Parts: sequence; structure tokens; C-alpha cells
Amino acid sequence: MYIEKINSPEDLKKLSIDQLNVVSEEVRHILLQKLSKYGGHVGPNLGVVEATIAMHYVFNSPIDKIVFDVSHQCYTHKILTGRRDAFINNQESGYTNPRESEHDFFIMGHTSTGVSLACGLAKGRDLKKEKSNIIAFVGDGALSGGEAYEGLDNVSILGSNMIIVVNDNQWSIAEDHGGLYKNLRQLRESNGECECNFFRALGLDYMYVSEGNDIPTLIKAFESIKDIDHPIVIHIHTLKGKGYEFAIKDEEKFHWTFPFNIETGENLIDYSKIESYNGLTGEYLLKKMKENPELIAITSATPSVISFFAEQRKEAGKQFFDVGIAEEHAVAFASGIAKAGCKSVYPVYETFIQRSFDQLLEDLCLNNNPALLLVFAAGLYGIPDASHLGFFDIPFFCAIPNMVYLAPVCKEEYLAMLEWGIKEISHPVAIRVPANGVFPASFPIDDDYSRLNTFRVTKDGTKIAVIAAGSFYQLGESVINALEDKTGIKATLINPRYLTGVDNVLLDAIKANHQLVITLEDGIIDGGFGERIASFYGDSDMKVLNYGLKKEFIDRYKVADVLKDNRLTDIQIVEDICSILKL
Amino acid sequence: MYIEKINSPEDLKKLSIDQLNVVSEEVRHILLQKLSKYGGHVGPNLGVVEATIAMHYVFNSPIDKIVFDVSHQCYTHKILTGRRDAFINNQESGYTNPRESEHDFFIMGHTSTGVSLACGLAKGRDLKKEKSNIIAFVGDGALSGGEAYEGLDNVSILGSNMIIVVNDNQWSIAEDHGGLYKNLRQLRESNGECECNFFRALGLDYMYVSEGNDIPTLIKAFESIKDIDHPIVIHIHTLKGKGYEFAIKDEEKFHWTFPFNIETGENLIDYSKIESYNGLTGEYLLKKMKENPELIAITSATPSVISFFAEQRKEAGKQFFDVGIAEEHAVAFASGIAKAGCKSVYPVYETFIQRSFDQLLEDLCLNNNPALLLVFAAGLYGIPDASHLGFFDIPFFCAIPNMVYLAPVCKEEYLAMLEWGIKEISHPVAIRVPANGVFPASFPIDDDYSRLNTFRVTKDGTKIAVIAAGSFYQLGESVINALEDKTGIKATLINPRYLTGVDNVLLDAIKANHQLVITLEDGIIDGGFGERIASFYGDSDMKVLNYGLKKEFIDRYKVADVLKDNRLTDIQIVEDICSILKL
Repeated sequence: MYIEKINSPEDLKKLSIDQLNVVSEEVRHILLQKLSKYGGHVGPNLGVVEATIAMHYVFNSPIDKIVFDVSHQCYTHKILTGRRDAFINNQESGYTNPRESEHDFFIMGHTSTGVSLACGLAKGRDLKKEKSNIIAFVGDGALSGGEAYEGLDNVSILGSNMIIVVNDNQWSIAEDHGGLYKNLRQLRESNGECECNFFRALGLDYMYVSEGNDIPTLIKAFESIKDIDHPIVIHIHTLKGKGYEFAIKDEEKFHWTFPFNIETGENLIDYSKIESYNGLTGEYLLKKMKENPELIAITSATPSVISFFAEQRKEAGKQFFDVGIAEEHAVAFASGIAKAGCKSVYPVYETFIQRSFDQLLEDLCLNNNPALLLVFAAGLYGIPDASHLGFFDIPFFCAIPNMVYLAPVCKEEYLAMLEWGIKEISHPVAIRVPANGVFPASFPIDDDYSRLNTFRVTKDGTKIAVIAAGSFYQLGESVINALEDKTGIKATLINPRYLTGVDNVLLDAIKANHQLVITLEDGIIDGGFGERIASFYGDSDMKVLNYGLKKEFIDRYKVADVLKDNRLTDIQIVEDICSILKL
Repeated sequence: MYIEKINSPEDLKKLSIDQLNVVSEEVRHILLQKLSKYGGHVGPNLGVVEATIAMHYVFNSPIDKIVFDVSHQCYTHKILTGRRDAFINNQESGYTNPRESEHDFFIMGHTSTGVSLACGLAKGRDLKKEKSNIIAFVGDGALSGGEAYEGLDNVSILGSNMIIVVNDNQWSIAEDHGGLYKNLRQLRESNGECECNFFRALGLDYMYVSEGNDIPTLIKAFESIKDIDHPIVIHIHTLKGKGYEFAIKDEEKFHWTFPFNIETGENLIDYSKIESYNGLTGEYLLKKMKENPELIAITSATPSVISFFAEQRKEAGKQFFDVGIAEEHAVAFASGIAKAGCKSVYPVYETFIQRSFDQLLEDLCLNNNPALLLVFAAGLYGIPDASHLGFFDIPFFCAIPNMVYLAPVCKEEYLAMLEWGIKEISHPVAIRVPANGVFPASFPIDDDYSRLNTFRVTKDGTKIAVIAAGSFYQLGESVINALEDKTGIKATLINPRYLTGVDNVLLDAIKANHQLVITLEDGIIDGGFGERIASFYGDSDMKVLNYGLKKEFIDRYKVADVLKDNRLTDIQIVEDICSILKL
């Protein structure tokens, strides 16, 4: 066992090649043990064990700086930089984080950002007249993102040392898409020799390494370009999932997986049997596509968000388009399709649609083209990593004219809104898919949502009105019940349904027999839904309390803790109500 | 005169080549007459007269659809599609707009979007099983933008007709930057023959046309690929500013210009002599760069925003970096530089920083790196075109944790904030540069802004408090005065200074002797600064009125009209105050 003695990259440098090869096996063992227990990015990390060892062997981190683009390929790096036990025990995030180690330089999770960030480190080094190697380690899937391209185009004119390691494992999250991947294949097939070369076309120096899982080859390659005086791309060909047969065979499943049985490759829990909005949406869209050949679903490299796996993608055929990691294009593309008179549906994770603010505003909503977005994993119940938070969407969606942002609260309402959203031709529509589980309807469901910004009273009451939006609707129900238990007051419950506007008529009407309005939203309070209600009542005697999340980055959180910290439990809210109204 | 008989592209098709050449001269005459009188994009449009004529001669618009990327190159297109007189009389916008003509398909203004939008039209056509040519007309400057790249990468796998005309005039707004431009040069120099070809590397078919200002050559080229069954790039080499010597000699000035004297090329008004925040910022930064070699200014292709022309750029040397149209990269690059311990300053137009929401959130603020952004032309006093509106920034900047967004109200305060922002190392800072003119200070200026979210009372009063942010501070002064004139009440005036937080202490303190708080912000009300104040007072007896802009797209507006429509004149606000307080 060598791995137990490696507490920093320095320890690695003392080993022989044979010993490094043993280390790579030991790292793989750790990866599989940990990931089968806790889940995580399996394939990407198994593929880059050797490259990571070779980089740390050749370069002098942290003087030389390695920036892991997307950073979900950093597990071996974490193991080698003094965080082995923390990694094994799942005590740290699956991404780089400077607070964890001097060998990390950025908290990163969204892909395609590493080249630009590293380019900044290199420029800073040059301004300070320091010497070091700056290395951006980029997965091939990340190259479809516009930011990666902007970075490469600019690195080219940096005029000083920068090393871009392109880890080409021939896969993004699902298959790789886009014209660039043809060129990567040509480069692999010609051993890097073919004249037409994307990287050289951007003015970059280039080197190809076909044996990207061979430590001596990689060491030789890295040594040959260490301290280079200009930017260079090292294109290394690796095997995603190397060392674990199931991950090689099913690259998509093992890109990121839940805990699994190492012997069988099967998930410990069969999530496909649990009802989810992902599965419901996929089924629904496939059915609709058969009825309507002018309906198309777009994904930006995450088809699993609607449970579109190989079988469903095949079934959808040309009515499904994976643009790769390219959220800007996805929105503009959807807008163009809608302009042509077809219906484009773009299911996307909240944390990634953040990349498309300008495209939503200009390409889509300024043109008022009726595309439909389905926003998954929004709010606190989304992804609990600091780099993938999903609760900043309400302010930015709600700042965009013409956008209709709907917040269903249960299965039947979601499906009705989906149905309506597909028919809608007057506006772009986005639906904030609940992330807190699939609840059944507890009130009658409308099928037409064209009368915008009409809230619904779902429980009549007096004195206090609780406006509970989207995935906090169930919290609203629970507040109402707790309040009645404690005080006997039957409060009014309102499902606002629309996040992008306010129901002036209803809000005016409830002035008559209410003193206090509570707003609940599963997102940051600042700039959110509730503050508009407070503003509406600004000139009246109505008291308003806005509940939601503080504006802050939180990492690896537990939902229950965050709810409590933000006074978002029914007990706390009832306490506040009693205190305000002196009950 | 042929041009007077051309009311649609159909009329063009009846003409001979010789007659088309005459038309091109007539169009240039119109362009110069109109642009010298009203200002606008001179060089880009003079360069594409022939290409536009040839496209409309060969293709059948609007069945065939031409999408003008950025669309500020569409003037000839407007003249040829029935809008000649409206164009001459400046009755329409300088961008395409489907409400103006069936020959326009999108309202577009931000560059790099055309390929993706056109790709959507093409996909929609295919789903509908229709036949037509879809043409994206893209300027070379637009190719540095990530969205353009994402589009090209995806067009490549479309599998059906799409024609991308790349208008290569060797210039973006200032010089072209980035590695790609080396490849464009190689392609020009090899007459399109060199093996290493950016477009082919993305899997696209390719054709080069060296005589991009020659109508017969262009017609032949377009005819040869009309109805092509796969995507192709036609790279045409044109002369920016063709036909007007001053525009050829000074491409940067004539990219977009104020009204000018045709004979001399001089602006009718010498704006360089009028004090502006642009000039003040440029001077200040140059001075600071000399003191601090680790200070760098970044631009995304608009160095003129800080009056950095050729001379200033030369003076700044390596302390100035133009990333091209690449706002995503610019933010990540600035973050990396700050992480390396240098100070990066990124002056940018509000309408373009919208492209970087995710980069601001993840690359910059999640990492809490102390870069400094200067946001120009924000608010109503920015750019009055629907595609370049600048008043959506407050909700999105304010949704981002760690970001400090400052709103100076006068010259001295701006300079003090700039000075502080350069020294600040705890947070990313953005300054919303006033766009309503340079006002002198009317109160003492602080030099330290590290006590975040501390508002300042600039005029003591009672009963009513006016919180007047940024470029609406002067409106606040005027409201206070009008109110005193009308009612005798001396109201309190508050300069909040910080848009990203609320001064709880001050807001609490004024409860004692105030009944009404007015907020004024030069941006949309929804999700903005004022609503947070309304929320703060939600549980109290304080009345709050939020003033700002309705959330809507407005085009070619007059500031005074919009102010009135939004009840943003002092008279209207005083009326509202009197009505609420029954004065």
C-alpha cells in the first residue's frame, strides 16, 4: 500500500513508475469503494486516475496550478492532495474548493469554465512577473460550451505559459454531440496528425497523446511541455470508466450514479420504480410527440432529466435534439423553432439555465416566441452543492418581460400546466417543476392558464392569508393546520400558480377580512415573489411577512437544517404570526 | 434612379447586374445621408451593401429566411424590403424587427445569436417538412461569442439546408482579437484553401469568396449553394466602410458614430469635450495603472466605454486586455486574475453583462474573488433600443450572494467608489455608473465603503423619507423640493449607495418620525431594490411606495415619456404622496 503514505503531491514524486502504477490501482479501489457507497461521478474519475497522477508527478502544485474544469473529475486529485480520508468518508464535496486545500483554486461545478479561470491565473502570474505552470484540465464534454470556446480563443493570444489538457473520453454526459466531436475523432484516428485541427484553428499549439491511461507516456508528455513559454493543448485519449467493466459498458449510467452494488453494477435502490416528475415528463412528452410531429424536446446534455435514456431517445428520433453542454444555444434554438411554428420544449436543471439569462431575455422573450421550458431541481430540494444551487431562479425569471413562470404544486397541476404550455402560443412559458416529491392534488385543477397571474384560493379563511408558491405549497398547508391547532383561526390558503405576476384583484379582495399575508417561496427572498406582494400592500394596512431563503451560498446542506435556519418550519411561522398579531 | 422602384426583393430580381451595381451606389448614398444626419452603424453597413443585394437577388425572402446576426448590418436589407423611406426618415430601429416587415424574423441586437436562432428556424422547417433556405448572416466580430460557437457546433449536425454567411471585414468593434482571427487571415491569404479551417474543424462544409463586394461574384456563389441539402459556411471577404474613405481609414470611429459631417468625417458635436463618466473612468484607470502594474482593465470589444482609443490602449499596454465579444470569458478571466492577487477591472455595458449571469454567480461570486465591474449605460438613460435595454440589472445583480453593487449619484462619489473598489479585497464589487449625466456632489463623500449596506441621510426631515438610488437621486432631490413647495413638509432624503442590501438600522430608526417611505430606482420595480424596503416594513405601520419602471420591452423611447408613463416625475410623485397621506 503506497496510497496511505501519500499526503501531498510531494510524496508521489518519490515513487518509481512501477510504484505509481500500483498507486493508480489503489486509487481506483478507493474510488469504487467510496462511490458505490455514496454515489457520485464514477466514469469520469476512473478515466483520469493516471493523468492526475502524472500531472502531480510532473508539476509542482500548488506553485503550478491545476484547474479542474467542471471539477467533478477531481476525485483522484483530492485523494492525492491530503484529503484521502475525508474523501473516503464523504466529508467533502465532489468538487474542488480552495477552502479545503491549497491545491484547489476555485469552487467549480458548472462545466466549460476552467480555461477562462485558468487564463486569469496565468494573466495574473504574468502581471506579477512570477513563474509557474498553469494547467486547465478539461473534459471533452465541456468543449461544447460557449465559455470554453471563448476561453480557448483568448488563451491563444495570452503569449505565455498555459497548458490545456483536453481529456477526450469520447463522451459527454450522454453521447457527445456537435460537429467538434467529428474533429476530435479525426484527431484520434490520425494520431493527432490530421491537418484540420480545431485547436490549431484557434491558434493554439497542440500535442496528441493516444495512451492517456499510461503513466510513463503521460509523464513524458507533461515533462516535454513543462515550463513551455506559450499556450498548448495536450489532447489525451482516455477510457471513461477504466478499471470497472460496468462503467465502461454503460457510460451514461456511470457518469453520475446513485450508490450501487460493485459486483452487479445495479443501483442499491431502484429509482426507476419511484414516481418522479422526471419519469412523468418523459412519458408525457413521448406520448405527445406521437400525436404531434411538430413537437420537439431539446436537452443540453442531460436527457436523464426527463428519463430519456437510449430507448426513449431512439423512440423520439428527430423530435429529440441534444445540443451538448450549450445552454445558450438551447434557448435560442428553442426560440427559432417556436418562431417557425413548431413547439419546442426544453427541460433543464435550474442551476444550468442560469447560463442563459441573456438568451431568455433577448433571443426568446423579446421576440415573445412560445417555447416551453421545464425547470427541474429548482429551489432547496434541488442539488445541495454550492456549485449547483437551484434557488436563484425566481428573481431572474421574474425580471424578464413576456415570460410566464408557473409553479405547480402537485402532479395533476403540473400535468395540466404542461398540457397548456404545449398548446400556448402567446408567450414563452417556463414551469418550475416541483422538486419536493410528487404529491396528489388536494383541490380542483384548471386546464387553462391563459388568464395570467390569477391566484387560486384553495382554502377559505379569514384574518391571515398564506400564499404558498410551488414546492412550498405543502408547507403552507401545514402552517394553516398548525395555526388552527394552536389558535383556532382558520386561515386562507392561496396557490399563486404564477410567479411572474401578482393577482391584484384577489389581493385587493382579501384586504376586507385579512390583517396579515404570509408568503412562502422555495427560493431566495431578495428579488423574489414575496417582495412583490409586500410592495403591493405597501400603501395599505395589510401586514406582510415574506418567507424564503437568505441570499447565501450553502454547501452540502441538509434541507431540514436550512428550513430551520430560515424560519421555514410550520412551528416557527406560526410563532411569528402569533407574535405579530399578538395572539 | 432604380432604388425608388424597389419596394420588395421581387423588384430587385428584375434588374440586370449593371443595374444592381447602380443600386449599390444608390444604397450607399442613402446610408451616408441618413447616418450622417442621425448617426448609427456606418462601417458595418457600407461593407455589406453588395452582399445584401446579392442575397436578395438569389434567395426568395421571406420564404427563404435571412437572419441578420447582431442585425446592425441590416440597413441595406431594410432599404430593399419596403422600408426605404422609413429608414431615411429614421422612423424605425436600426435592427431587424418582425413587427416592421415579413422579411425580418427576430428582434436582434446582441451579437453572436443569429446562427442559433436560424438553426431553430431550420429545424422547425424540417419538422414541418417544408422547403426553404435558411441563411444566417454573421459578422466576423460575432464569432468570438460563445453562443455563436455553440450554434456552429450544432448546425453541423442539423443534417439539412442551412447557409451561414460569414462576413469577414477583419474588424470587430475595435480590432479583432482572439486566436480565431489568425485562422480567418490564413483562410483569406490562402483563398480559403488552407487545410486548417475552423469551420471544417466543426464539421461544416465551407466556401470562400474573396470578392465580397462584387455583386456578380456573390450572385454566382449564392446560386451555387441555393437549396443545398446540408449546412455550409460561405466566408466572404468584405471591406468595412466601403465607399466612404473616412470610414475605411477610421474603422473604429465609424463602427457606430454620432451624426457627422460627410465632407470632413467629423462629428457634428465634439463629445470628447463634454465631461462623461466614460472619459473620467479611462483617465482614472490609466493613472492608476501607472501606479500599480498589477491592475488590469478588461473589455469585451467595447474599449470606448472607458474612452480607451488607440492611444490609451497603447499606453496601457499589457494592463489592458480586449477579449472580443466574449462576456462570459471576461468575467471568469477577471475572477482568475483577482484570485492570482491582481486587480481586474471590467467596464461593460449593462445590456451585455446580462450574458454573464452564471459567470458572475459561479465563476466570480461563489469564489468571492475581488474583481471590480463597472456597469455603464444602466437604467433608463442607457440605450433606448428594445434589444439593448439596460434596466434589468438590479434584480439579477442583487440575486447573487457576495456581490456588492454600488450606486453612486455624483462624480465625487463615483470616483471615491472606484478608488475603494480597486482597493477592496473582500468581495467582488460592481459599480452602476450613473448614465444621467455628471453631477457634482451636494453632500460630503465617504472614502471607505467596507461597512456594507449603510445608507446615508443626505437631507434630514420628518414624516416622509425618499430613498433615491443612483441615477434617480436627482429625481429624489426634486421630489423633496416639490413636496416642500406644495405642502411645507421637509422630507428626509436618503442615498442608499448599496443596491445589494438594506440598512436595517437606519430603516428601523426612521420609523420613529416617518409615516411613508418612497423608493426611487432607475430600473424595473419587479425584483428590484425598492421591494426589499417594502418587505422590510411588511410587519410595521410604515407605508411604502416603490417607484421604478414597469417590466416591459420598450423601443426607441424618449426618457421623458417613460418617466411620465411610470409616474416618475416629481409632480406625479408628490401627488401620490399627498393622496396617500391625505395632505
